Amino acid sequence: MILPDSIQRLIDALSRLPGIGPKTASRLTFFLLRSPEELSRGLAQALLALKSETSTCRTCFNITEAGREECAVCANPEREAEVICVVEEPLDVLALERSGAYRGRYHVLHGVLSPIEGVGPDDLRIRELLERLRRGGVNEVILATNPSLEGDATAMYLRQQVEALGVRVTRLARGLPVGGDLEYADPNTLSRALLGRQEMP
Amino acid sequence: MILPDSIQRLIDALSRLPGIGPKTASRLTFFLLRSPEELSRGLAQALLALKSETSTCRTCFNITEAGREECAVCANPEREAEVICVVEEPLDVLALERSGAYRGRYHVLHGVLSPIEGVGPDDLRIRELLERLRRGGVNEVILATNPSLEGDATAMYLRQQVEALGVRVTRLARGLPVGGDLEYADPNTLSRALLGRQEMP
Repeated sequence: MILPDSIQRLIDALSRLPGIGPKTASRLTFFLLRSPEELSRGLAQALLALKSETSTCRTCFNITEAGREECAVCANPEREAEVICVVEEPLDVLALERSGAYRGRYHVLHGVLSPIEGVGPDDLRIRELLERLRRGGVNEVILATNPSLEGDATAMYLRQQVEALGVRVTRLARGLPVGGDLEYADPNTLSRALLGRQEMP
Repeated sequence: MILPDSIQRLIDALSRLPGIGPKTASRLTFFLLRSPEELSRGLAQALLALKSETSTCRTCFNITEAGREECAVCANPEREAEVICVVEEPLDVLALERSGAYRGRYHVLHGVLSPIEGVGPDDLRIRELLERLRRGGVNEVILATNPSLEGDATAMYLRQQVEALGVRVTRLARGLPVGGDLEYADPNTLSRALLGRQEMP
């Protein structure tokens, strides 16, 4: 049996998303097929609006509503301007904001250095970060790239560049995740937790 | 940080799909956000075409291209008209067709009997199946509902109805999946494989 064209097209389109293989794509397609039309139409409209209704903050390169020059954080005068937290992706900003533990500004690199994938410093928003620092007023840069090989390499590179401008550089702490189980922690995390041990308050 | 409206809407719409939680939905959304616009636009168009370009076969209730009265299998005179394979969903037709081992016709129930979810015989295409059989020309009905509690119950119910019309009823064999490992087979599958053991050819 050849599948109707429109079904095959949707399966193909869904398969292009990360983590969705052909099997999941066809399960989703047949789910939509037997669901009310509002469901697929709502999803289609949300997809079409995604790009047209968002833009990038001209200061920190986080995403923001279309038509706004600055994101909600940069536009908020109550956020500390002296601290910039550097992250890989807009999703990381969201995660940090959910923690409620950060009151400074952000800078979104939109990627990490990756020689294998051909991503160099010019492909990230590094130049713009250094320009922000040169304008003055910032006394700490928190490097919050992922605790991965590439995230660490990017942090090392940024550390040199930022320290050359006389700005203090810090990196997010490594250790046991809160609520985690020591028994299941991987050896690297455990060594970092030991190295970073602190006096109890 | 409050997410831009259009991003939150897409995360919500994706979260409504089965097997996609809020975390996966936001990962997919941010993936689409940094991908070329063609990707999200193509997906949106495929979604909009899904319902408008498909219809249901009037004979077997499989899905087919809009404007066609019969699906590709029913319209194919080379498919054996004497055997009807009864399945739960259009996806099951696809799976059987991929096997290349079946040359008969199908009948899609669009669900299974489920007292808990309030699905009774009138909610499935059972009446239409019995009408097809009454028209004559069919000498075997293969029950290919899932090997689950509800699939088995539906098969039991259909067996009575179909046998009452004097038509032979069979059920797909249970046993070890090809390429599977005896060591990892569950006890039920193993008992069925033992019960259904056959002389070697």
